[in-house]
Amino acid sequence: MLNFAQPAIEASRSWISKEGPHILSEYAELLSIPNHASDSVNIHKNARLIEQKFTDRGFDMRLLTLPGAPPIVYGEKLVPGATRTVCIYVHYDGQPVDPLLWNHDAFDPKMYDQSIYNGGKMIPMPKEGEPISEDWRLYARSASDDKAPLIALLAAMDALKAGNMGYSSNIKLFFDGEEESSSPNLESYLTTYNTLFQDIDVWVLCDGSVYQTGDPSFKFGGRGITSMQLTVYGAERPLHSGHYGNWAPVPGQMLARLLTSMKAEDGTVLIDGYYDSIDPLTEREKEMLDNIPNIDSMLKTELGIVQTEGNGQPLMERLLYPSLTIKGLSSGSVGDLARNIIPEFAIAELDMRLVKGNDPEKMMDLVEAHIQKQGWHIVREDPDMATRRKYPKIVKVVRSQDGFPATRVDISQAAIQDVIKGVESFTGENAVFLISSGGSNRVNDAIYKMLKTPAIQVNMVNHDNNQHAANENVRIGNLWYGIDLMSVLLTMP
Amino acid sequence: MLNFAQPAIEASRSWISKEGPHILSEYAELLSIPNHASDSVNIHKNARLIEQKFTDRGFDMRLLTLPGAPPIVYGEKLVPGATRTVCIYVHYDGQPVDPLLWNHDAFDPKMYDQSIYNGGKMIPMPKEGEPISEDWRLYARSASDDKAPLIALLAAMDALKAGNMGYSSNIKLFFDGEEESSSPNLESYLTTYNTLFQDIDVWVLCDGSVYQTGDPSFKFGGRGITSMQLTVYGAERPLHSGHYGNWAPVPGQMLARLLTSMKAEDGTVLIDGYYDSIDPLTEREKEMLDNIPNIDSMLKTELGIVQTEGNGQPLMERLLYPSLTIKGLSSGSVGDLARNIIPEFAIAELDMRLVKGNDPEKMMDLVEAHIQKQGWHIVREDPDMATRRKYPKIVKVVRSQDGFPATRVDISQAAIQDVIKGVESFTGENAVFLISSGGSNRVNDAIYKMLKTPAIQVNMVNHDNNQHAANENVRIGNLWYGIDLMSVLLTMP
Repeated sequence: MLNFAQPAIEASRSWISKEGPHILSEYAELLSIPNHASDSVNIHKNARLIEQKFTDRGFDMRLLTLPGAPPIVYGEKLVPGATRTVCIYVHYDGQPVDPLLWNHDAFDPKMYDQSIYNGGKMIPMPKEGEPISEDWRLYARSASDDKAPLIALLAAMDALKAGNMGYSSNIKLFFDGEEESSSPNLESYLTTYNTLFQDIDVWVLCDGSVYQTGDPSFKFGGRGITSMQLTVYGAERPLHSGHYGNWAPVPGQMLARLLTSMKAEDGTVLIDGYYDSIDPLTEREKEMLDNIPNIDSMLKTELGIVQTEGNGQPLMERLLYPSLTIKGLSSGSVGDLARNIIPEFAIAELDMRLVKGNDPEKMMDLVEAHIQKQGWHIVREDPDMATRRKYPKIVKVVRSQDGFPATRVDISQAAIQDVIKGVESFTGENAVFLISSGGSNRVNDAIYKMLKTPAIQVNMVNHDNNQHAANENVRIGNLWYGIDLMSVLLTMP
Repeated sequence: MLNFAQPAIEASRSWISKEGPHILSEYAELLSIPNHASDSVNIHKNARLIEQKFTDRGFDMRLLTLPGAPPIVYGEKLVPGATRTVCIYVHYDGQPVDPLLWNHDAFDPKMYDQSIYNGGKMIPMPKEGEPISEDWRLYARSASDDKAPLIALLAAMDALKAGNMGYSSNIKLFFDGEEESSSPNLESYLTTYNTLFQDIDVWVLCDGSVYQTGDPSFKFGGRGITSMQLTVYGAERPLHSGHYGNWAPVPGQMLARLLTSMKAEDGTVLIDGYYDSIDPLTEREKEMLDNIPNIDSMLKTELGIVQTEGNGQPLMERLLYPSLTIKGLSSGSVGDLARNIIPEFAIAELDMRLVKGNDPEKMMDLVEAHIQKQGWHIVREDPDMATRRKYPKIVKVVRSQDGFPATRVDISQAAIQDVIKGVESFTGENAVFLISSGGSNRVNDAIYKMLKTPAIQVNMVNHDNNQHAANENVRIGNLWYGIDLMSVLLTMP
């Protein structure tokens, strides 16, 4: 298509074909530093490396800091004559790593000739001049979530420079260092450094994957999130399963019963009021929903599942309801470490995704009310002996302190329309516009609540990237698409 | 009480009061060698050390071996004029250790001034001449289960020698090296070395704890055991809990529902036929049951529980029914490692204790029939994609290969009566005679089935010893009692 995007894309593609191996080796360098938000030494290493790389590309960089928090890597580049300021949000921290589950060290990036789920084999990183397949995958923590937009931005800047192209907007950079820990200091950062953000017209949030069809996707909100940890108690110490089995209470059994009471077999949450506070969709949102391609049968085949929650309701509709998901379960040990005991406790971790209208605290109240209705006594600390001797069913409930509500942005705003038009000129009709991401992004909530600035989520990475889990990866073709996309965003009229 | 036991007990007590610190340091030496059956290097170290110690006490020792199996430490001492041969069974292997759960290295024995559950503090091992409290506890893997009878035997032999007393029976020693792995080679050992066991009149099985009142206890059988591992599958890979939560199947939720269907809230197993094959008690067994002190309320206070399974039926009665206990549960991760994913599977480890009449294979068949009745498709290996795409509910069932049935010995046999009279002359009316241990001991089954020789279980260690779990310990007073008991058994008329 002949339009404004053409020269940017040509610059991007020419750069990729010449410099692909260099882009990938620079990316491997970025991915080799562990990046859990709690690992403050390595988080700072990440921040300084990223700061340096954007300084090298002509940005005025600084680390914004608050005591005890990972720094925000902040940058700006003012463009003479620009009438719009775009702030690009990326996060450089990642989810924790369970090394036992990975094929290799999560911070020693490895290339595979395709997804390991399709039998991909490890191959060497490409050398200068070697061809690179778009189906290759680079495996490392944060390869997709969320360092991919960083390397895409860096390469796009290099590509535009090589093509003698300038930027069309003032660009600000805001790189979060604790998004995967729910960005607990984000609001403090936005308050403390408020003056830096006043002139921003639109935030472009680079996080999350493209639509499952592989088509470009753009999201106008995200689900809210909160979580609860439930610990159910048996005897005060683990007991021999022979000497006490069939008499002593079994925490795993009691927990199973409690969890079963919360959800029907078809996935409907049975907690009173769980669906009562949902804001209805606007007419425009209903239209958008109708236009989203149904990918359920494709996904079911890909994921190897026959039956989904919700009696066949499509995924995109299910994401408009609050969820209640068991993300972790533990009692005693399994496998080789399994012992012949009755464990003294059992734990469930519940993930709750919220939709517009749901208040995180009130949703957790509903869960607690349900638990109490099942005859449980709720405690906030491990129970002492007096408590244990008083109540037959004791559960410790730990409520997340850093949940936040869902956001859905008004798509008709001018700045949002600018970005939509910009990307549409590049993606054409393939672009999928989603009312809300299924995922949650505190920045969505904070920007909207505190700055009143509109935001749009722009996605580049493959949907089957294993984000948050072991063997996270990015498909190389998606990385290349990301460079195209960033080149277009930096030059859109 | 003035009887035959008097001189043996005097010899034991005099030895303990002089040599207590030496006994404990020799015990610490025994406990410092890791002893999981799969750790073949250390298992052999244990075997050779034990062999040496009994050789030093005048026993004719040898290691019985079979390829790939831990050795049996075997020994004998023939006594001129003895008309009876007693074989003492102990096992020197221990349960696996989860180091994260222990207060200290499980193989670096530490003394505490009382149980850590009562606030016990670590104290140095006593030096020569220092007083030793009976309430002290020695913490280490196998401190109770089951190296305690080894040190009790060694000390009893030393005590009798110091008191110039001989043994009244021919003594054989049979020390198992894989009891905690269900002694898979025991039957082969009894077959291969059959000639060594033909002249045994009674087996004295030293394993398990005294009655919960602290009174001496003797058991005439044990429950059988088997186990099953259930793995329930969701999508083929872990999914982002935001992008798929409320649509993708949640294995933890599905597993909770399955487990809940197996057991009523009062602990009654709901699997069809689970209670149908139980052999009724004989009149004599019913009498024994009636004479066992009810310890439920004491135990409930000690363990910090209000409600037990079985609607208030006493523990000793509950042990005469088959059990179904969740000994392990796992899906995703909990605590600091919890991630925002929908895990791809969930695992439950089921412990099943069986009573006389229950066949292990048939009991597992009943569980499988129940699972199928709930609409599950059972597989034996992780399902491939074709299977995943065909069945909505898939569970992998791994059945234990080394379960065995329960045993209950006929108490009226002469050799059993000999031992009962011997110990009664020492313990008086306090002794508690139990129809069956709640625990399971393959040797019970094998001896009875293969050698037709009667066996009696003789207990010494405290019941709150945390056997099989973290922070296993032995109360020093129980160790001393064990030395008394062994001195009496070696000299009983």
